[in-house]
Amino acid sequence: MIIDVHGHYTTAPAALGAWRDLQIAGLNDPSKAPAASDLKISDDELRESIETNQLAKMRERGSDLTVFSPRASFMAHHVGDFEVSSTWAAICNELCYRVSQLFPDHFVSAAMLPQSPGVDPKTCIPELVRCVEQYGNVGINLNPDPSGGHWTSPPLSDRHWYPIYEKMVEYDIPAMVHVSTSCNACFHTTGAHYLNADTTAFMQCLTSDLFKDFPTLKFLIPHGGGAVPYHWGRFRGLAQELKKPLLEDHLLHNIFFDTCVYHQPGIDLLTKVIPVDNILFASEMIGAVRGIDPQTGHYYDDTKRYIEASTQLSAAQKQQIYEGNARRVFPRLDAALKQKEK
Amino acid sequence: MIIDVHGHYTTAPAALGAWRDLQIAGLNDPSKAPAASDLKISDDELRESIETNQLAKMRERGSDLTVFSPRASFMAHHVGDFEVSSTWAAICNELCYRVSQLFPDHFVSAAMLPQSPGVDPKTCIPELVRCVEQYGNVGINLNPDPSGGHWTSPPLSDRHWYPIYEKMVEYDIPAMVHVSTSCNACFHTTGAHYLNADTTAFMQCLTSDLFKDFPTLKFLIPHGGGAVPYHWGRFRGLAQELKKPLLEDHLLHNIFFDTCVYHQPGIDLLTKVIPVDNILFASEMIGAVRGIDPQTGHYYDDTKRYIEASTQLSAAQKQQIYEGNARRVFPRLDAALKQKEK
Repeated sequence: MIIDVHGHYTTAPAALGAWRDLQIAGLNDPSKAPAASDLKISDDELRESIETNQLAKMRERGSDLTVFSPRASFMAHHVGDFEVSSTWAAICNELCYRVSQLFPDHFVSAAMLPQSPGVDPKTCIPELVRCVEQYGNVGINLNPDPSGGHWTSPPLSDRHWYPIYEKMVEYDIPAMVHVSTSCNACFHTTGAHYLNADTTAFMQCLTSDLFKDFPTLKFLIPHGGGAVPYHWGRFRGLAQELKKPLLEDHLLHNIFFDTCVYHQPGIDLLTKVIPVDNILFASEMIGAVRGIDPQTGHYYDDTKRYIEASTQLSAAQKQQIYEGNARRVFPRLDAALKQKEK
Repeated sequence: MIIDVHGHYTTAPAALGAWRDLQIAGLNDPSKAPAASDLKISDDELRESIETNQLAKMRERGSDLTVFSPRASFMAHHVGDFEVSSTWAAICNELCYRVSQLFPDHFVSAAMLPQSPGVDPKTCIPELVRCVEQYGNVGINLNPDPSGGHWTSPPLSDRHWYPIYEKMVEYDIPAMVHVSTSCNACFHTTGAHYLNADTTAFMQCLTSDLFKDFPTLKFLIPHGGGAVPYHWGRFRGLAQELKKPLLEDHLLHNIFFDTCVYHQPGIDLLTKVIPVDNILFASEMIGAVRGIDPQTGHYYDDTKRYIEASTQLSAAQKQQIYEGNARRVFPRLDAALKQKEK
């Protein structure tokens, strides 16, 4: 089985964006604010938005199951206050859950959290609980910068975040560390902010002893780990200067990288430098880079092709990246699959 | 000849740091503020600080000449106001100039600018002029985030920066785009902020048409380009989505990457993905990563070893990375060398 651990609902029916626009308009003019119940999207609309997009591409490319969460750039935790984020997260998570119910063999849902800048992360717990217990979510997306590019929250190693970690450990769910839209003009959202956040999160863990406090906490760092594998020597050297253990011991029981790297040399570096145990297949399809690479004639984000073409991975290692590691890092996904005798 | 285009004066005599501490103390208590003339460092002290450090390592490793600028993390443009930065930059630039005079065959100087958050960059021009005309500087370091991790300045593509670009073009000097210490707790200085800034600067150029306005402007992006080469497919794809020309045409007449990547797989990726014309040898020795890699038994930042060990570069291409490209990107360096019949 081929599991893609990084998919977002980027193709939700237009009614979702229209509802969000009204919610944002309501921040200045409360008479415009919609009720959650004003949003009506039928199962047929959901089906069509998936069948003609993600599911069509999964079939073309040959992946089986996607861990599916709300659109990352739409989380926009910097918009409004906690109530605004809370209503928005509930709506987006419900839609992903409905997709997972409509296509139970192909989508399993993961939650966005109702984060809001300056608000205690423990306020996210009720939504997290609801998503795990009622929706069967197998993971969460955690935004290390709910300000949207101003980086006003403490580092991920700070006790500020511990309430979320405690719940993650209790449920044995990983967090994909994923920022949202940048509202800082310096940072292009998908070309700078996403990659910077990946690098930043890794370094926040490296300088800390977070995983001594939470030995079973698991972070998935998307986009191939930002700059980290390319600069693996730098990070090994910095850990050494800081008198930390070897990265394998210090971080790699807890940190995993996905394969959202959109060219062969990048995937080859990732799989050469990072232990196979720590690499999970993902494409972030349909996401930031939707075109066809003129150098190959294939979609940039068809990352399965790069894994397939790897000359350094054995068939068993490829299967680990495609399935085995995902089942280990997402134990609730593994349990759900086993229940279906998969 | 082997030219290292990225060296900082990280080993300046302790009197420099002590003077800076007093300058900072003077921000709150003007009675403590030192005069520039209070700093006394003899030629012998400068000589020793270089001979036992950078020059010793250059001899060991076999590089000949270093483009030498003030310590990046000490620029700290966020400290104080323009006057504070101005005095500090003048002192640091003078020391690098003196080093270049003491070791004319081994060091050529590049300038830090007296940037200050919120201050018009044109205020940096007098120091830039002084460094080029009186000190023979061959390049500058440009900090895209003088706030130190809060990213409050406009992107490098903004007209805000044009006064500096006009002077760079007039003098035909490149800028290394290099941030300084992070005072944002989210960003480790050398493990996150530096690499993020590299990626950010590249993407600021990608989304803009800056090089249409300045066809001969040249940026050197240090630390191997941050995350850029590893994600070259992503950047090619994003340029395509944004209807920009191919990166070779859009950016690679103006943007260059150094080789400060501290392991063999990283250098192999860099040299595979980025055209050889756009890669300049550098080590940032003595810099962020000073240890010996237990996997190789050699210094992480002995980047010449990785170039030497490359199986994909021809001898001519290695020479281009070591010397030819540096002479092309730093025309004033080339002219100075030719004057010495080198």
